[in-house]
Amino acid sequence: MSAFFTEEDSVGAVNSRMGADINPRLREVMAGLVKHLHAFTKEVQLTQREWELAIDFLTQTGQICSGERQEFILLSDTLGVSMLVDAINHRRPSSATENTVLGPFHVTGAPEREMNAQISLDGKGESCLFEGRVVDINGNPVPGARIDVWSDNAEGFYDVQQPGVQPKWNNRGVFTTGIDGKYSFVGIKPVSYPIPYDGPVGKMLAALGRHPYRPAHIHFIVTAKEFETVVTHTFVGDDPYITSDAVFGVKQTLVAPFERAESGQTAWRSTFDFVLTPMGFHHTS
Amino acid sequence: MSAFFTEEDSVGAVNSRMGADINPRLREVMAGLVKHLHAFTKEVQLTQREWELAIDFLTQTGQICSGERQEFILLSDTLGVSMLVDAINHRRPSSATENTVLGPFHVTGAPEREMNAQISLDGKGESCLFEGRVVDINGNPVPGARIDVWSDNAEGFYDVQQPGVQPKWNNRGVFTTGIDGKYSFVGIKPVSYPIPYDGPVGKMLAALGRHPYRPAHIHFIVTAKEFETVVTHTFVGDDPYITSDAVFGVKQTLVAPFERAESGQTAWRSTFDFVLTPMGFHHTS
Repeated sequence: MSAFFTEEDSVGAVNSRMGADINPRLREVMAGLVKHLHAFTKEVQLTQREWELAIDFLTQTGQICSGERQEFILLSDTLGVSMLVDAINHRRPSSATENTVLGPFHVTGAPEREMNAQISLDGKGESCLFEGRVVDINGNPVPGARIDVWSDNAEGFYDVQQPGVQPKWNNRGVFTTGIDGKYSFVGIKPVSYPIPYDGPVGKMLAALGRHPYRPAHIHFIVTAKEFETVVTHTFVGDDPYITSDAVFGVKQTLVAPFERAESGQTAWRSTFDFVLTPMGFHHTS
Repeated sequence: MSAFFTEEDSVGAVNSRMGADINPRLREVMAGLVKHLHAFTKEVQLTQREWELAIDFLTQTGQICSGERQEFILLSDTLGVSMLVDAINHRRPSSATENTVLGPFHVTGAPEREMNAQISLDGKGESCLFEGRVVDINGNPVPGARIDVWSDNAEGFYDVQQPGVQPKWNNRGVFTTGIDGKYSFVGIKPVSYPIPYDGPVGKMLAALGRHPYRPAHIHFIVTAKEFETVVTHTFVGDDPYITSDAVFGVKQTLVAPFERAESGQTAWRSTFDFVLTPMGFHHTS
């Protein structure tokens, strides 16, 4: 290796500069980053003008971030990186419920509600009964499981996006299973909506010929003692965007039935069981 | 390929989403970016916490950018990407003068000066005669070549970093060669200085066990009709940072002699010839 930078050994020039006593994991991550960043640059033979555009894009992405907006997460989401990191870190037995992205609209502290409670407080949308069980990978009910649920309203907005317009905690609630592991509550059949597309990421999607929509879904965080926490959604299968989620959040196993309720007090019914993985379960890639 | 995201085919899931009618070069660059970004994420098995740290780092890097500060360029520089892009786009015959990074301190409109003029206006530092020739790759002099030169002062600051402290255009000037292709001017022997290290990039360098210094150098842009523009520096070879430039700007061929002047009016003398590549010269990688 030359003491100086060369195109051929550009990776070695950078990575050999790291100190001897640094955090070994930081060394591993940064060495990998530099290797792949340089491989990308060489593979596409990035031009000076394209590099300038990339610098501008990253700068704009950082500058639009605020307490209410995280454009770099949006960038990670739309490039599939968020889902990939989630997948790498949440490998589970094939029968267990899969994770998907948390998204930016979760709020801690939603009201605890009784089973069968109504969580849609604005009177809008098509009512839907959500029901099912929380079970372990052997099918045994998990009592005391906590189900934190949130969805958009019939106009595609979460309550936190419309403070003063929607009632507080609209389409949110926390439910705890009893001895049978069952849950049920009444909300609305969720609707599809676009991720924020008035910033750099929206411009990127437009240039790539991609739309900014997420297929209709409802969010769940299911926690129970001695089980891995599940952060997931269930999706409406006949949504026009079901195979083109802007953030790649859809997994086959998370497409839930949404059926017309023949009887009962809701227009729709969606039955979905959450299958929890025991803590310490051995995962292989 | 599945219609949905899978860890195995994460790259295909993202890249197959691009529209049919988009800019073909954009498609190529983005497909390569996603491929390498996912390969990096998988290779290091990035954790959720590391992903969060990366999001925070990028956000801070964007937020500190201003009209006077470009932290993403600094990040690109310190990861060797700027030099790599420069190398890819400026391949030259081995006898020709190599490029290096432009840096953030070039200012257009510096005063045109006569040969042998003094460019150090603050009376500080060790005086140095810079001299040499502008020639083509066959050694023939290039008349009418424009040499735009700038360096830091003896305290390691460019004039634009200290408005009101240094005289305007201190250590800057533009010279034009005559029929013999020769140039000469009087400045100072430049000194090493750190890149801005009070931001996210400085923190990154510290965590990597790297210092923020650049070895002493003087900048040149040499332009001449029918030749490729050379954007480069010459470096002081005995600088303590010569083999550890924070931005990897040093190339072997750009280390210039700085010798004690036995006679004459300056303490030092540095002789360097700029060898220009004809426009349209066929480059191979």
